[in-house]
Amino acid sequence: MVLIAHPRPGSFNHALAAVAAERLIEDGYEVSLHDLYVEGFHPVITAEETRTYGADAEQVVAATGDALVRRHRELIREATTLVVVHPNWWGKPPAILAGWLDRILVPGIAYRLDAAQGVPTCLLKLRRLVVLNTSDTPPQREAAVFGDPLEAIWTRCVGEYLGDAIVSRTVFAPLAGSTPAQRESWLARTATLVSTPT
Amino acid sequence: MVLIAHPRPGSFNHALAAVAAERLIEDGYEVSLHDLYVEGFHPVITAEETRTYGADAEQVVAATGDALVRRHRELIREATTLVVVHPNWWGKPPAILAGWLDRILVPGIAYRLDAAQGVPTCLLKLRRLVVLNTSDTPPQREAAVFGDPLEAIWTRCVGEYLGDAIVSRTVFAPLAGSTPAQRESWLARTATLVSTPT
Repeated sequence: MVLIAHPRPGSFNHALAAVAAERLIEDGYEVSLHDLYVEGFHPVITAEETRTYGADAEQVVAATGDALVRRHRELIREATTLVVVHPNWWGKPPAILAGWLDRILVPGIAYRLDAAQGVPTCLLKLRRLVVLNTSDTPPQREAAVFGDPLEAIWTRCVGEYLGDAIVSRTVFAPLAGSTPAQRESWLARTATLVSTPT
Repeated sequence: MVLIAHPRPGSFNHALAAVAAERLIEDGYEVSLHDLYVEGFHPVITAEETRTYGADAEQVVAATGDALVRRHRELIREATTLVVVHPNWWGKPPAILAGWLDRILVPGIAYRLDAAQGVPTCLLKLRRLVVLNTSDTPPQREAAVFGDPLEAIWTRCVGEYLGDAIVSRTVFAPLAGSTPAQRESWLARTATLVSTPT
């Protein structure tokens, strides 16, 4: 399952997602590629959907009236690899992807909590989460000034709920002012990153 | 300007926002209180709205066809204090507030960048950002396991764009299992937090 969250068709994020999807297909995966903007994913979880504590997956999948949300929940339950591609906006994913987390990785689908403050049990088959980010901020400034919260969101907050899945995150930055040769090398690196380790 | 991002009317987040708004009114502020769910704020920035680099504020305000977005942009330009109230979801704000950042704090309204990788110049009149969060995760676990990315998002990523505004963030946790007395004390603390220092 490959997700892309970028508003402009033809963005470098789209090129990264395309390379990732192509390489996964070459590696023998069945790939579902989702441009959340093109699909019109609606990221605002409803009050009803937040009342799923303790429900099992079939009930939870059926508990939304949003057919696209139901479809994404079905797909993530079957996925063994998740690739997400997005720019760094305010140290978080764009809202459309922030809401994908809110609405898709819900209790009963992604994990089970036996107590509200407890340690989650992962319900997914995911073996790998590969995060590919772009940013206009040089890595040193991101770390020193902004504290790189996206690293914690993906590798720690989300990662903690993914059981034994291996989480990797790669940032391509600064994108603004990058040369064609630099971007080519980032695309080549992406193909290597998503390829199944041999 | 007070923002609340929580799907369930009557939530403790709503109580926090109400107390904050009331205290600001008592302190002599003109308060605009915005329940983003009730207003139906649409958090997905459009491709057109991302093409605002270098535009000035009047052009940027007019550059969206979304009347609510225009209104929020006008309000944030006049605000001296911003209070945001939201739960911790995956170490980030709920999507509806994530998208408020994406669509409202845009170049030409919130800041000016003279170079894509440069240091921002704040365009707002904000003197204070007060962030009030709820979470079911005890503070020790949040820091040790999850790395508390919301702290970096608000105080560092957003804070860096707010010029000399003072950013404070307070987390009320764990909310699950909290007693009425505990929640009363959190509400009282909120009133103190938002009150103008004398």
